[in-house]
Amino acid sequence: MDDIEIEAVEEVDLTDPVLIEGLPGVGNVGKLAVEHLLEEFEEATLVRRVYADVFPPQVSIDEGVAELTHAAIHAVETPGEGPDLLLLTGDHQAQSNEGHYHLTDAFLDIAEEFGVERLFALGGVPTGELVDEPSVLGAVADESRLDELEEAGVEFREDEPAGGVVGVSGLLLGLGARRGLDATCLMGETSGYLVDPQSAQVVIEVLQDLLEFSVDFESLEERAEEMKEVAAKIQEMQQQQQGTIASDDDLRYIG
Amino acid sequence: MDDIEIEAVEEVDLTDPVLIEGLPGVGNVGKLAVEHLLEEFEEATLVRRVYADVFPPQVSIDEGVAELTHAAIHAVETPGEGPDLLLLTGDHQAQSNEGHYHLTDAFLDIAEEFGVERLFALGGVPTGELVDEPSVLGAVADESRLDELEEAGVEFREDEPAGGVVGVSGLLLGLGARRGLDATCLMGETSGYLVDPQSAQVVIEVLQDLLEFSVDFESLEERAEEMKEVAAKIQEMQQQQQGTIASDDDLRYIG
Amino acid sequence: MDDIEIEAVEEVDLTDPVLIEGLPGVGNVGKLAVEHLLEEFEEATLVRRVYADVFPPQVSIDEGVAELTHAAIHAVETPGEGPDLLLLTGDHQAQSNEGHYHLTDAFLDIAEEFGVERLFALGGVPTGELVDEPSVLGAVADESRLDELEEAGVEFREDEPAGGVVGVSGLLLGLGARRGLDATCLMGETSGYLVDPQSAQVVIEVLQDLLEFSVDFESLEERAEEMKEVAAKIQEMQQQQQGTIASDDDLRYIG
Amino acid sequence: MDDIEIEAVEEVDLTDPVLIEGLPGVGNVGKLAVEHLLEEFEEATLVRRVYADVFPPQVSIDEGVAELTHAAIHAVETPGEGPDLLLLTGDHQAQSNEGHYHLTDAFLDIAEEFGVERLFALGGVPTGELVDEPSVLGAVADESRLDELEEAGVEFREDEPAGGVVGVSGLLLGLGARRGLDATCLMGETSGYLVDPQSAQVVIEVLQDLLEFSVDFESLEERAEEMKEVAAKIQEMQQQQQGTIASDDDLRYIG
Repeated sequence: MDDIEIEAVEEVDLTDPVLIEGLPGVGNVGKLAVEHLLEEFEEATLVRRVYADVFPPQVSIDEGVAELTHAAIHAVETPGEGPDLLLLTGDHQAQSNEGHYHLTDAFLDIAEEFGVERLFALGGVPTGELVDEPSVLGAVADESRLDELEEAGVEFREDEPAGGVVGVSGLLLGLGARRGLDATCLMGETSGYLVDPQSAQVVIEVLQDLLEFSVDFESLEERAEEMKEVAAKIQEMQQQQQGTIASDDDLRYIG
Repeated sequence: MDDIEIEAVEEVDLTDPVLIEGLPGVGNVGKLAVEHLLEEFEEATLVRRVYADVFPPQVSIDEGVAELTHAAIHAVETPGEGPDLLLLTGDHQAQSNEGHYHLTDAFLDIAEEFGVERLFALGGVPTGELVDEPSVLGAVADESRLDELEEAGVEFREDEPAGGVVGVSGLLLGLGARRGLDATCLMGETSGYLVDPQSAQVVIEVLQDLLEFSVDFESLEERAEEMKEVAAKIQEMQQQQQGTIASDDDLRYIG
Repeated sequence: MDDIEIEAVEEVDLTDPVLIEGLPGVGNVGKLAVEHLLEEFEEATLVRRVYADVFPPQVSIDEGVAELTHAAIHAVETPGEGPDLLLLTGDHQAQSNEGHYHLTDAFLDIAEEFGVERLFALGGVPTGELVDEPSVLGAVADESRLDELEEAGVEFREDEPAGGVVGVSGLLLGLGARRGLDATCLMGETSGYLVDPQSAQVVIEVLQDLLEFSVDFESLEERAEEMKEVAAKIQEMQQQQQGTIASDDDLRYIG
Repeated sequence: MDDIEIEAVEEVDLTDPVLIEGLPGVGNVGKLAVEHLLEEFEEATLVRRVYADVFPPQVSIDEGVAELTHAAIHAVETPGEGPDLLLLTGDHQAQSNEGHYHLTDAFLDIAEEFGVERLFALGGVPTGELVDEPSVLGAVADESRLDELEEAGVEFREDEPAGGVVGVSGLLLGLGARRGLDATCLMGETSGYLVDPQSAQVVIEVLQDLLEFSVDFESLEERAEEMKEVAAKIQEMQQQQQGTIASDDDLRYIG
């Protein structure tokens, strides 16, 4: 196997396709978002698998059958006027510094092979606490897109995200820009403690607006409800613990 | 020395050989199993040594003579109807992410050079506690083998092993599958705390069934008895320690 | 993107240029110094950007627009008699051992392309405590420069810096010397706890003397004042904390 | 600079030279030994410097002048009947797994270029406590040398050193053997806590016997005396500390 190996699974002719990336990250916001799109777009076709020696050296197992770590790219010929989509996701990011760069180059090579000129990298920005109504923050390769994105509800805040954008999402912006691609990063606010289907939903809502597609959100909303219950239970447990410690303190002053 | 260097020690003509891998891992189950087969098959011939700059930079010493870290492949022309065997073992795994991939590729190159079309990667799956009657769990490259393996007593459980299969064993499955090889991973349940000869035995028993060979288990059973005694002693020591701590607590409430 | 990629932004003809390096380091002394020169020399022209897979895989964001991690080289045609300057700075150093070597080679390639024969690597040497009047310590590639530097106020102390000079600054000396370049490292004493504009200033003062240029120091002096206030506040807080702990000790002996 | 760069400083014709390696390690026994030989053999000529991107990225400073991290090889045309020597030493080992392999290959390339057919890797084996009369343990590439070495006082003990021989010393044995070189590792027993000139001396005494040279040991003996005093002081301080703690315990039971 080459250091990075691209397996051509199928060929699909796409019209003005837009690449949308959702690899694991903060709150798994991008991953949840792209996986949701894959569920909702029934006509998604697996076109490429990307294997790499910088992915964890392991196989995942599904019903006894092993699958080597890889990133997957699906093509979607969207119904309606909006552009076709190339959806990129996977279970792992590169495990080394140089690996991030070279893997992102491979993703961009595939994108350009399909005629992609515009891309969206999706992720989460950690706030450190649960957020009721998460905003979508943005970063672009070129300022010409700022107005359109702000109109779609994307916020551009000074000094946020602190430390910039790290990993494949950031490199899709940086390396994409150097290739002359129109690159945007959309990041849903999220606590950073839990996977966040609600944050994934607000990010998709922005995308829908920009790319003129429409998907149903029922399954994401169900998962968001589940997460809210999990979060509530955790908060309850923490308060109980604090309550118990307080009681012990009280006992020390008795008699 | 090249990054990975294969030393051809001897050539042997094998009939439909099956590769069996047993490198160090959980409970050293795979390693113990393959080393046992090497002891039991007197006609095992060392055919290849694999050196690599991703192995630990060291030599082991035996009776004053140094040996550079390497993986060894032995050929066994089995008596009887079953396939010949290529046995792969060693004292170390690769020390880097990329190293696992490239080393596994080297092992598969050697296997294909000998005409291997089927392989078994052996290992252990940690249960966290001592197991009286360990099961053998499985993972395959292709579902067509599932029935035969289940008939031989291999269990395929949903969500086990958690996290998939890591290291050379997992990559032999993943990269083996991509080369069109018939690859299976057999994992004996084991505590994860001790080397486990009993787990190695149950794995070999499955292999015997599938590959129509037969070996004696006396030395493995002796080692298993020794390990049981060691485990019992450790449990005893732990209970004594807990007993002592309890005593101190008691003393605090006296007088 | 190649492992190290040099983007030619503009070409400028320089006369006997001197390379001055100021990448992040102890007290960010070198970085502050070079950034100050970039502010003060209005005629600074960005000539090269250096991208590398050994830089952190991320983009920084300025007013919503993303920029891929890189080192920047500016050319300055200085007014007056002194040599022209090539100013090298950035927000990050290489993230790997080998990366430091290869990145420094790239910087030296660019320097030689512009006709550089002399270079200064700027940095800080940590003293472990705040210094009122920081000295400038030195290290050279060749002893022929020792006298001139001592006359300019540079101190060469036995056993300082302890452990030599690490990172790109040290390698610019070592690799620069092997290319026959006249290389000097100037290091301003600094606590090591805070960024140190005062230390940056004393280093520039030495450079001004050697390279016959002159810049204003007002903005650096303002920042130095701010840092003094920050340092004073931190000391105050520490003393208050110690005072509080002392009080509790007192209470234990009362009654 | 290439990944590994060999600088030819001078050429010397040697007769049946023997390579002796003394890079940093346990107790710095090998390094002290080779540095002592360099002092004692006045006719030692620096013939090669080896630079590498796997050495720490730094320069050391001597009287203000910087020197890039490197390993040095000196040639010694010994007076008398014994073989000439190639002495290898330096201040650092490779900083990566693969680096150890490739650096050792470079050292062996240089050795073979000078006609070396026999080599000694010198080091220390840690005992965990101060040793009055350290033995010299051995490891060889080929058993044919065992008798001669035992006659010279080298001990070959089963299971020692535990874990084999790690780093360049081990690889000089392992890779040297694969090149058909006659390779031996001599390891002086040492505590592992301090640099050990006494251990270095006993190792040189064995070498003198085998290679028919003779050096004076006065400076090593002086350093050994100094180390004995340092060790004694440390033991004293530890006992005082324990004495003090005992006193506090006593006070608790008074009154």
